[in-house]
Amino acid sequence: MEPTTTTVLAAANVPAEPVMRRFRMTIAYDGTAYNGWQRQPEPALTVQREIEKAAGSVVSHPVTVCGSSRTDQGVHALGQVAVMQSTTYLEPEVLRRAINSRLPADILIRTLDIAPTHFDVFMPVSKRYRFLIWNDRDRPVMNRQYVYHYYQPLDLAAMQAACERFVGTFDYEAFRGRTDDRDNTVRTIFRCSVHRSRGNSPLVIFSVEGSGFLYHMVRTMVGTVLEIGRGHWKPERISDIIASKDRQQAGPTAPAQGLCLQWIRY
Amino acid sequence: MEPTTTTVLAAANVPAEPVMRRFRMTIAYDGTAYNGWQRQPEPALTVQREIEKAAGSVVSHPVTVCGSSRTDQGVHALGQVAVMQSTTYLEPEVLRRAINSRLPADILIRTLDIAPTHFDVFMPVSKRYRFLIWNDRDRPVMNRQYVYHYYQPLDLAAMQAACERFVGTFDYEAFRGRTDDRDNTVRTIFRCSVHRSRGNSPLVIFSVEGSGFLYHMVRTMVGTVLEIGRGHWKPERISDIIASKDRQQAGPTAPAQGLCLQWIRY
Repeated sequence: MEPTTTTVLAAANVPAEPVMRRFRMTIAYDGTAYNGWQRQPEPALTVQREIEKAAGSVVSHPVTVCGSSRTDQGVHALGQVAVMQSTTYLEPEVLRRAINSRLPADILIRTLDIAPTHFDVFMPVSKRYRFLIWNDRDRPVMNRQYVYHYYQPLDLAAMQAACERFVGTFDYEAFRGRTDDRDNTVRTIFRCSVHRSRGNSPLVIFSVEGSGFLYHMVRTMVGTVLEIGRGHWKPERISDIIASKDRQQAGPTAPAQGLCLQWIRY
Repeated sequence: MEPTTTTVLAAANVPAEPVMRRFRMTIAYDGTAYNGWQRQPEPALTVQREIEKAAGSVVSHPVTVCGSSRTDQGVHALGQVAVMQSTTYLEPEVLRRAINSRLPADILIRTLDIAPTHFDVFMPVSKRYRFLIWNDRDRPVMNRQYVYHYYQPLDLAAMQAACERFVGTFDYEAFRGRTDDRDNTVRTIFRCSVHRSRGNSPLVIFSVEGSGFLYHMVRTMVGTVLEIGRGHWKPERISDIIASKDRQQAGPTAPAQGLCLQWIRY
C-alpha cells in the first residue's frame, strides 16, 4: 500500500495542521523616535507596530504583539516584555535573529523563547524603571537623548530621604497623570533610591522598583524628588503628598527622555 | 576744564581702541552629524564652522577658530582645544555662555579663558583618544552612534599585549591613511591599553595617549588590534607591521563613530 501524505507527515513528526505557538520576548528600544510603545492610527510611529511589521514579514502572517508596559512617547526600554502567537516552525533563536534583521537600529529583541503555558504578560511581580538626570551647569553633549538636564545644585541626601518615603503600599492617586482612568490607584513600591553615578559625575540615577505604576507615576515621582533636591520642599513632604491624593500637591512631571524601563519580573 | 571723552575713558580704564584678545577653548561635540572638524566649502556641515558662526554672532565680527586636531567625519570629542581672537569686552565666562546658547545641542564649549601669551594650539605635549567597541552577538541599541559593533569573540589579553607593543617612539608610516602627506611619520606613544568596561559588559574600551597622531592612525591601530583580538594574528605582529612601514601589513581602518578625542595637554 502506498503511504498517504498524512502517514508520511506523521512519521516525520510534522503536524498536518499548523500549530499555534506563543512566544515570549524581552525587547530593548531607544524611544527617541517613537510615539511610545502602543500601536496607534497611522502615521504615528510606534515600537509595537515596528515589531509587528518585522515579525509578520518573517512568519508570513499578521502578528499581534502584546507588551507588558505601555511606555510613553520618548521613553526607552532595556527590558520590555511581550508575547506573540505564530504558526511558524522556526526555532526561537532563528526567529529572534530573523526579526532583528528586519527591525530598525533602535529596536532589538534581546531574548525570545516559547512562553510557559500559564505565563501572563500582564501579571508581573515587579518592574524596575530608571531615570537619568544630567546635573550640571552645562547641557549634556553625548547621550543627550537619554538624560534630563537639570542645572540647579541637588542635595542627594535629601533626595534619598524622599525616595525612602515612597517604599510601601500606598494609594498613589496624587502621582497619577490626568488621562489615567484606572480604578485601583494602590501600588506597592519595593525599592526607591537615587545616587550619583560616581564621585563628582554630573549623572544622577533615580531607580524605582514596584508592583506596577500608574500613568506618568515615575516621572511625577522624579519631578517631586527634584523639588526636594533643589531645597524647595523637605523630604517629609512626600508622605503628605501621598496622603493628600491630590495631583496638585506633587511636583511637575519630569520629561520622558530620562526614563528607561529596565526589567520586568514574573 | 571739561573732561574730554578720551580722559573719561582713560579714567574708567576702558581702552579707546578695541583691543584684540586671544581666547582658548575646550570643546565637546557629538560628531555624528558633522563632516568632521575642519571648515569645508558649503554646504558641508563642520564643527569649526558652527563655532565660528555662533562666536561671530556673539562678538559681532567674523571669527576664525583654530583647532588642535582635525577630527574626521563622525569622530567625537570631549576635549578638542581651539583658539580664537576677538575684540569683545565680554568676560570669558559670559562669552562662553553666550556662544553656547547659539550652538546646536551637539556642540558645547566646556571652558573658555584668555590664552597665555606663548600658548600654541598646534604644539601639544600629549593627546588622548578613546575607541569604544560593542563586543556582542547583538547590535547595540542605546548609544549606538558612539560604538563600533564587533560581534566576534575577543581575546582581551592578546589585545592588551598588542597595545603594549605600540608604546615608544616609532615611524608610524604603516598606520597612516593614504591621504596623509606629512613628511615626518615618527610619533611617540606614551600609553596604550584595552579593557572591558566591567565584568561581562559588551563594552570594550581602547585608549591611546601620544605626542600626536597621523591621519587615520588611531583607527588603523584599533583595526589591527581587533585582528589580534579575534585570533587572526599574534600580538608580536604589531612590531613587524611598524617595522615594515607598509600600510598593507596593518589591519583595516576601524569606523569613525567609535572614536573620541578625550583631551589634549600642553
